[in-house]
Amino acid sequence: MIQHTVAFSLHHRSGSKEEQAFLSQARLLRSLPGVMDFKVLRQVSSKNSFAFGLSMMFSSQHSYDAYNTHPDHLRFVETIWLPQVAEFMEIDYVEELG
Amino acid sequence: MIQHTVAFSLHHRSGSKEEQAFLSQARLLRSLPGVMDFKVLRQVSSKNSFAFGLSMMFSSQHSYDAYNTHPDHLRFVETIWLPQVAEFMEIDYVEELG
Repeated sequence: MIQHTVAFSLHHRSGSKEEQAFLSQARLLRSLPGVMDFKVLRQVSSKNSFAFGLSMMFSSQHSYDAYNTHPDHLRFVETIWLPQVAEFMEIDYVEELG
Repeated sequence: MIQHTVAFSLHHRSGSKEEQAFLSQARLLRSLPGVMDFKVLRQVSSKNSFAFGLSMMFSSQHSYDAYNTHPDHLRFVETIWLPQVAEFMEIDYVEELG
């Protein structure tokens, strides 16, 4: 299992309609093949400047790669993510060690 | 529920005894009051330079604060974490939005 996470902030004002519209679009990613346990999260640590997070699970690297290259994902990244996201960091974890 | 995560890299060589010793010490944090679902994770995204992650859940901000200020946690940070960790980022998430 691979947990794919991305912490991010938007160009939009907090609480704005544009922010909600972005999150609604992001939620559509949950229906892509291989995506499990999809979550839209609020980031609350004061030790970084990210406002939100997405988290999802993949059963294998193959599933993760298929998601990354899926046309709906590529379209989301190009037309919604890149224009509206101010900063982001992807962090992926695999299962517990030892 | 609050998910507290910290992605990090060590000064130690990958696979070294020192690395394993650090992770063993980190695992002791799971027994501190309020800590739930504690995990030591390997970070696998090529889009950042962190090698590991810790993830734990707290039922409330009060529990999280109590962990942060617990003498065993403070001692861990001072005597083990700070001398051995090369870089880290804390990211905390609360439950799913909308």
